[in-house]
Amino acid sequence: MNQDQLKQLVGQKAVEYVHDGMQVGLGTGSTVKFMVDALGERVKNEHLNIVGVSTSERTAAQAKSLGIPMKSVDDVDHLDLTIDGADEISKDFQGVKGGGAALLFEKIVAINSDKVIWIVDESKMVDQLGAFGLPVEVIPYGSQHVFEKMAARGYHPEFRRHAGELVRTDSNNIIIDLHLDPISDPHVLAEDLIHMVGVVEHGLFLDMVNTVIVGHADGPEVLTARP
Amino acid sequence: MNQDQLKQLVGQKAVEYVHDGMQVGLGTGSTVKFMVDALGERVKNEHLNIVGVSTSERTAAQAKSLGIPMKSVDDVDHLDLTIDGADEISKDFQGVKGGGAALLFEKIVAINSDKVIWIVDESKMVDQLGAFGLPVEVIPYGSQHVFEKMAARGYHPEFRRHAGELVRTDSNNIIIDLHLDPISDPHVLAEDLIHMVGVVEHGLFLDMVNTVIVGHADGPEVLTARP
Repeated sequence: MNQDQLKQLVGQKAVEYVHDGMQVGLGTGSTVKFMVDALGERVKNEHLNIVGVSTSERTAAQAKSLGIPMKSVDDVDHLDLTIDGADEISKDFQGVKGGGAALLFEKIVAINSDKVIWIVDESKMVDQLGAFGLPVEVIPYGSQHVFEKMAARGYHPEFRRHAGELVRTDSNNIIIDLHLDPISDPHVLAEDLIHMVGVVEHGLFLDMVNTVIVGHADGPEVLTARP
Repeated sequence: MNQDQLKQLVGQKAVEYVHDGMQVGLGTGSTVKFMVDALGERVKNEHLNIVGVSTSERTAAQAKSLGIPMKSVDDVDHLDLTIDGADEISKDFQGVKGGGAALLFEKIVAINSDKVIWIVDESKMVDQLGAFGLPVEVIPYGSQHVFEKMAARGYHPEFRRHAGELVRTDSNNIIIDLHLDPISDPHVLAEDLIHMVGVVEHGLFLDMVNTVIVGHADGPEVLTARP
């Protein structure tokens, strides 16, 4: 089974958790793309009556093209379920997200969801967080000072660039990736980052996921993180 | 003495704290406008060699027109001094700012300054914070949910509008004003707000000001808040 087939199976498994009448948050990323395909199939074949809420333009466009009715996060009173990817998940089910620079909208949708499912291939399951790099969304104004404070604390910051230009998020902010390997105490780090003036949000998603679906060569594995 | 004359005297008093070679943060607001005028006079008459860093387009344009050399906050290594206004200052020198929707850039400049001076008329000195309203800068995406969480906590939130439209900050975010009168524990409130996903920054400026210059009918009064 190749990587894409694994991701497809994981996506198909995840949409089994979607039921008629749900308002569902749809994340962003390559595994999520397969999940949205599978969800589109269910909407078409089973006439599943759901509303999708997306965390990026990419996912919104894909979902609409598949006939999934979409609403803005501010036009739903709550979300029943969010299905998203993750860049790293530790043994105690803490996560790092933001490789695709969509961490802010992803976190906003996640915290407004009754349940959160992450879908990943097995390479994302790690002993300790940190190898991937921790994305932090930062206001451009004053970002040089934020960068220097992070460097002084030993966080090994790096401005994220693409083709030489600073990457801009959907909120027109920038991303500073922290190269901490390992992140010894994610909660302590999260507290420090959120108190830095100019930091909008960080990629640590702590105590947030309920179910993780991991793609293995012999098929998807369902792990219960929190009830 | 009318209100403008009071503000003018306060502005003149404040620029006595500016010395040759300093990098000076310039706030935003009606009292600050008089201070920048006075600073321009000193630059012109005394050939004071300083660099200004502004927190808004308004102040930047005024300072440039007066011949004050200006730099971006990210092009100075630190600020020696910042002079700004405030909307409310309590007896223990905690402040509320953000009436002009510039709280984020004002806070970024303030926390990177060795010293902070606030200049206000005496109506801004209060027993307890809260009567003015507390501005909170919020990411538009998901802001309805932030609003509802604030309402549920009894913070009496109100979206700030101008001519019917939501006010946008220089970072293209929105402002939610909280009507808490009084704010019984500013530190507890600040901690709660900064942990709300979607909140970029709030207007509580705590443990931050060193000197407050208050305009009275009989002239400016200088108060030392912190060494």
